[in-house]
Formats: sequence, C-alpha cells, structure tokens
Amino acid sequence: MTTHTVGALPVNDNESTHALDRRHVFHSWSVQGALDPMVIAGGEGSTVWDFDGRRYLDFSSQLVNVNIGHQHPRIVEAIREQAGRLTTVAPAHANDMRGEAAARITAHAPDGFDKVFFTNGGADANENAIRMARLVTGRDKVISRYRSYHGNTGAAIVATGDWRRVSNEYATGHVHAFGPYLYRSEFWATTPEQECERALQHLERIVQCEGPSTVAAILLETIPGTAGVLVPPPGYLAGVRAIADRYGILLILDEVMAGFARAGEWFAFDAEGLVPDLVTFAKGVNSGYVPVGGVLISDRVARHFDDRMFPGGLTYSGHPLAAASIVASIDAMEQEGIVEHAAEIGRSHLGPGLAALAAKHEVIGEVRGRGVFWAVELVSDAETREPVTAAWMGRLKGELLQRGVLPFTADNRLHVVPPAVVTPAEVATGLQVVDETLAALA
Amino acid sequence: MTTHTVGALPVNDNESTHALDRRHVFHSWSVQGALDPMVIAGGEGSTVWDFDGRRYLDFSSQLVNVNIGHQHPRIVEAIREQAGRLTTVAPAHANDMRGEAAARITAHAPDGFDKVFFTNGGADANENAIRMARLVTGRDKVISRYRSYHGNTGAAIVATGDWRRVSNEYATGHVHAFGPYLYRSEFWATTPEQECERALQHLERIVQCEGPSTVAAILLETIPGTAGVLVPPPGYLAGVRAIADRYGILLILDEVMAGFARAGEWFAFDAEGLVPDLVTFAKGVNSGYVPVGGVLISDRVARHFDDRMFPGGLTYSGHPLAAASIVASIDAMEQEGIVEHAAEIGRSHLGPGLAALAAKHEVIGEVRGRGVFWAVELVSDAETREPVTAAWMGRLKGELLQRGVLPFTADNRLHVVPPAVVTPAEVATGLQVVDETLAALA
Ligand SMILES: Cc1ncc(COP(=O)(O)O)c(C=O)c1O
Ligand SMILES: Cc1ncc(COP(=O)(O)O)c(C=O)c1O
Repeated sequence: MTTHTVGALPVNDNESTHALDRRHVFHSWSVQGALDPMVIAGGEGSTVWDFDGRRYLDFSSQLVNVNIGHQHPRIVEAIREQAGRLTTVAPAHANDMRGEAAARITAHAPDGFDKVFFTNGGADANENAIRMARLVTGRDKVISRYRSYHGNTGAAIVATGDWRRVSNEYATGHVHAFGPYLYRSEFWATTPEQECERALQHLERIVQCEGPSTVAAILLETIPGTAGVLVPPPGYLAGVRAIADRYGILLILDEVMAGFARAGEWFAFDAEGLVPDLVTFAKGVNSGYVPVGGVLISDRVARHFDDRMFPGGLTYSGHPLAAASIVASIDAMEQEGIVEHAAEIGRSHLGPGLAALAAKHEVIGEVRGRGVFWAVELVSDAETREPVTAAWMGRLKGELLQRGVLPFTADNRLHVVPPAVVTPAEVATGLQVVDETLAALA
Repeated sequence: MTTHTVGALPVNDNESTHALDRRHVFHSWSVQGALDPMVIAGGEGSTVWDFDGRRYLDFSSQLVNVNIGHQHPRIVEAIREQAGRLTTVAPAHANDMRGEAAARITAHAPDGFDKVFFTNGGADANENAIRMARLVTGRDKVISRYRSYHGNTGAAIVATGDWRRVSNEYATGHVHAFGPYLYRSEFWATTPEQECERALQHLERIVQCEGPSTVAAILLETIPGTAGVLVPPPGYLAGVRAIADRYGILLILDEVMAGFARAGEWFAFDAEGLVPDLVTFAKGVNSGYVPVGGVLISDRVARHFDDRMFPGGLTYSGHPLAAASIVASIDAMEQEGIVEHAAEIGRSHLGPGLAALAAKHEVIGEVRGRGVFWAVELVSDAETREPVTAAWMGRLKGELLQRGVLPFTADNRLHVVPPAVVTPAEVATGLQVVDETLAALA
C-alpha cells in the first residue's frame, strides 16, 4: 500500500484518513456533524478492509453496486490498459471503446433495443429517459411510485417517492402512485393475486384521473431496491405494460440497482414477461469501478430523434475509461457465468438460508428477494408488523460490523446484497453472523 | 494499440469504430440521423489522432476539459495505481484518496472554504449547490443568466440560459437576467464602465422585482464559457457580490469550465476581487480523465448542515479512482507550473496572436479571453455585427479539420481553447492554420 501525504500529514492509516474525511469531505444524505465514517482502504471479491487489516464481509456491495466483487482483476486490467491508451474523448466524436460498450449492453437487451445514451450515474440516466419520454409523447407528466428512489438531480429526485423527495420538490409534472407490497398493502389485499390486481387498478385510476393524454411515462424500478426489494407479484409489470399501451404512455424501467446480475438476470425484467420502452442502468453495468450510467433506448424512441435534435447531453457521455470497464465487466460476467451464479446463490443459498432465519427469529417479519438482492423486514411485533426502532437498527448495524459483516440497512430492514460473486461459504458465514447477532439482540 | 472485437467485428480502425458508433451510440445535443462523428483513437498533450494516424492539434480540449493535456503520464499512472488498489467505495465510508482530493481542492480555495461535496460532473455539482443555497436561505428562486450553460439535469438545465433550456423547462424557481457583454450590449452601453454599471443595475432591479426575500441564489459562470468566453468587466463580479450581500442571497460561481488553469488561475474568480459562497467545479479539476465534479463549500454554508440533514447524494460521490486523478492532476499542475503557464500563453501568445488575426481579417468582430480561454467572434458585417451563418461556420470547421486543427465552435464563434500545456510553437501552428483558413474563406 502506498503512502500518500497531504502537506505534513501522511495518509496511510485509519486515524489520518478519518481526520482528513472529517475535515474536508461533505457526505451524501447526512447530518454532517454526526458522522463517524468507517475507513475502507482496500477490497477483493466480497471482502473489504481498513488500514489496520480489519476485514469485513461486504454484504452491502457498497451501495449495492459492486456486483462483480471488489477489484475483479479483468476489470482492473481493462481500466489500466485504457488509462494508458486514452482516458477521455468528447461525446461528439466516435471512440472504439464507447461503441463496444454500447454493443455489449444492447447484446443483452431484448430485440428492438439498439442504442445507448451514456450518462455518469443513475440519476442522470433517469433525467434523460424522462426527457426522451416527454419529447416522444409531447406530454409532461411522469407517474412513479412512493416507494422508490431514482436519484438526486432535479427530475429524478422528484420522481423519487421516499422522504428524500420531500425537501427537494422543485420539478413539475410528477405524480406518485402506490405499488404492490403485500406485507404492508395499501390496497387492503390479502393474497398476491389480489395485491397485483388492485395495484394495477389503482395505477390505471391514477392515469385516468391525471388525464391519460398528459402522461408521458410510467417510471418504475423493476424491483424497488432501497425501498425494500419489493419483488413484484407475477403479472404486475405485464399489467403495467398493458396500461401504458392502452393510453399511449411510455414505460421506463429503472434497472440501476436491479440490473446486471443483482436479481439473477441481466435485466430484472427479463423474468417478468414484458418489454419496456426505455431502460435506465448504472451500478452493476461496471460495478461502479468508473462512474457511469445510461439509457438503453428502444428503436421506437430512438427513431424519434433521427431527424429531431435530442436536447440533452453531458461532457462525459460515453467516457472511454468507463466504457472499457463496461466491456470488461460484461465479458467477465458472461465468461464466468456470474449472472447464473447470482441466480443460483439466491435459489440455493440466500433464499433457503434467510427462510431458515425467519423461521427461527421472531423479529423477522418477512424475507423477500431473488439472486443476490434480498431484504429482511424486522418488526417488533409479528402481528401488527410494527417496524423495529431506528435505535434497534443502529445496534444491529454496530453488532454486525463488530462481527465482521458490513451490512446495508434501510428503515427497519436489513438488505442482504453481497456481490454476485459471493461464494456459498461466504453466504454461510454471513448468515451465521446475522443469526448470532439477531439472537444477541433478542 | 490493442485489437478489440465485437462478435465477428474487429474494432481497431476508423471504419468499424464509425460503424459501431452509428449503430449503437446515441449522442448528446444532436439530430441522431445527421451525425458523422470523427474517430478519436488516442492522444498526447495537445494532439489527438485517429486509427489511420491522422493527427490533429486539439484546440478544443475536447469539451474544454482536457486542461492538463491528453494522457499526462502522472495522472495516467495515478489512475493505474489506484485502479490496482481500490476503484470504488460507498460515499458513507472514509477513504484516503477522497480525503486527499478534497484537501487538494480546498488548499487552492480562499480562506473559509474547507469542505467539498463530490459529484460526477458539472450538472450535478450545480444541482447540489442550488440545493444547498435553497436550504440555507429557506428561499426558492435562483437567478442565472440568459447567456449561460449549467448542465443537462432538472434544475441545471433550467438555470441554463441558452436554447438548450427551452424544451426542458420542468423545474420551478428559475429566473434569468442579462449579463455584461459590451460587444452585443443589452443595456445600450458604449463603454465597459457603462456596461458594468448598467448590468449591475439590471440585476439588482430583477432581484427587487422578484422579491429579494424569495431569492436563494445568484448562479453565474465566473466567465460564461460556451456562451462566448464573456470575460466580465472589472468590478462586475464584486458588484454582484455586493447585491447578494445586500439582500441575503448566496452567490454560486460555476467554475466548471473556467477553473483549474483554463482562465490562467486556479479559480477564475481569484482575479476578480470577490469571494463567493459556493463554487462548482468539474472538467479541469482532473481534466475529465475520470468523470467527477463537485461543490466547494464555504464554512458559512457547511455549518448549516452540521446539525441538519443534507438531502442530496449519489452512489459515486467521492469515487476513489476519480479522487486519485484529482490528486495527481493538482499536484502536477502545481509542480509543473501549469496554471502560470496558461496565464503566460494567454498574455504572450494567444492574446497577441489573436489580436493580430483580428487586425488582419475583417470577419473577426471581437476577440475576448485570457489564459487558454478565448473566443473569436465572427461577423459578416463589422458595422452591424451580423453573425456569420451556420453554413459558414460549418465550412470553417471542415477547413480547420482538413488542415489538422480540431476546433471548438459555438454559434458564430471559434473558441480557441487548447490544453493549458499547449506550447508557444503549437499556438503559432494553430493560429497560422486559423489565419490561412480565414483567408481561404474570405
Ligand atoms: C433504483 C435506483 N435508481 C437510481 C439511482 C441513482 O443512481 P446514482 O446514485 O448513480 O445517481 C439509484 C441509487 O441508489 C437507485 O437505486
Ligand atoms: C459552465 C458549465 N457548467 C456546467 C457544465 C455541465 O458539466 P457536465 O457536462 O459535466 O454536466 C458545463 C459543461 O460544459 C459548463 O461549461
């Protein structure tokens, strides 16, 4: 490990890294004065470590983005090679790596998706998908869900449904609906079939009441992620597709978190029997090794801009270094069977393992997920489904870290979201730590 | 140069790169069917080349971002080293490189700027600066200029003044004012002093008419870039600072294009005798080798969030690979005197050279700039200042490329914006090509 210095301060240990962070780094979604960040100095596969060599099993994949694991040698090598060749090119030019990255992504898309618009992350992917839908339809409204997150920029944050939207409402044309979530049904439903049917009726009623001719797009996370890994009931997304078609509305699926192996598929909608009009991606496409995201565009939408200006763009659209990391990541996922591995981990290890924990610990209200994309809903009362408190979640997080597992938590949930390359042995270790920790907290 | 393949298609020549681009890449700000992008395969310093070895002097710095030149060995090496160490970490954690990058940036800021919020580019930097200003002031309006560009996301594109805003107006709370631009004065002014005084009076009248207690921020490019390198008259920005102070409004300076050597200073406002409340940056901070941007935050603004949630964030905030490239880039700029070099190139080479061309070619209406940040205003009539046509600009661009100079053009202007490492000999070569081309087109 190299030694770095800032002025007189060598930054090669936990203390100086922490001190430097507290002095100069402003953090996302935080009360700045209350922060005590843990130090991460390195990682490999499903493990990260600090400067003291303390190791953690990364059951968070950071922000659910390191799908291929930390420091996958092929992606590291591709970045190093492209760094030596050409790091950056303006979006107006043509570059081989950019073209190849786009070709890799369309190769895994349904028929009729041939173009990719690259952005820097998930938020601006959603911004540009919304822009396309508005221009293609000539309408302005976007319907999204209350339980959702779509990014922190102007339109994406107002499309977002959760609390993060509330102090940021400076965009027009956004409407929110409830989605299917049987465990906490907004529709007084008691079966998945009923939840699905009622959620579709609710959505269609909102379309009708907003005025179908004003609705440009329905924007949904295929599987709402941070909102709780809310796997849709069978037929729900196909039903949304039918509603969109009925009223000439475009369907945008946000696959930023769900795509590229996370849900055990290349795209999570592959398993849902429908084809959207636009797909947004980021995170898993290159595991975040270089910041990138984008919009996968159906021919129907792309054609609209063949003879009309597309009024959106950004300096780093199709960045060669990002593109090289996408190419290497998709190639590695293909050749190493990582998508299939993620599905199998879900089917044979995480699914059964979490079900066993649910049977054992009363605090677990529900377990949901597939692939390497799971949520464990924690409740203080199995009957009323009262969420555990924030203080309880804080203790859970602290205890898991203490025992060497880096968790992802949201509200009253533990999300179990390791890299897609996680091994059965690592799953067993991690679940055993969860088991012990829940027992200790009981 | 490596050979890459997509399916059966080897991508290591101009034809296949162009074909792949046309098949799969959706481009920024373009009519997609009308595109014929040039291929860029590699670069070094102020030169780029295609696969046939055809070389171009890069007088565009791509999108005015490659300030340190193409493939600077120290930044390439820093990226390669960090790639081997750790590419990505969630923003919640502390990472040494992230802390160091923030420290490097604050080291060049005025006193009282100690924190940095990292984003992926310029647009989301402006989004988050606007967010901070609204939350600190409890007000909603943002006043920016008609001649400006601030990025393509929800709020940034509506803060933008130019035509790119017009089909994207889905954000609330934006107001536009005219700024000083003596050559095409909106204030019937005939001297720089008069233009300055009237522009300030106009801005203050807009503040008053909007209701000062509703205005959160005045957001300005220190030197409007794409709008025409509109160097402000002496005293203008200090006058804006005084207006902001008079009404409790925050001043955000967008240094995305003007900062980090472009204008011959670390920050372009360093030469203007004022201190803003928030500064947004991207491009030159690491020359775009890895996508990154950010907000440099004054203590006054930062303190507001010490005990309050900051409701913004993104997956790749403070990305270690981007951070490593920032550290290396700022170190190289310091140690190699690149900021001073840029100032000197402007003072002794680009400035006098462009003035000589203006004296010679009637089509040049005005030359403006400093450092490596210049615009040449092209007019068909020196008296009426009628802009040359788009067709004429197309011919100019084609002829410059033909002669081996890659230009940056906007409206009726040639922007002369080479890397800050450009040599006097390269400036001489480039200006001679411009001279010949203007003669040929006369
Ligand atoms: C579903 C979804 N969409 C969009 C985003 C925003 O992506 P980014 O943070 O890269 O802007 C996220 C980030 O967590 C996400 O989970
Ligand atoms: C002054 C200014 N602000 C913001 C931006 C937006 O930056 P980005 O393209 O990285 O989003 C630009 C891009 O050209 C710019 O010139």
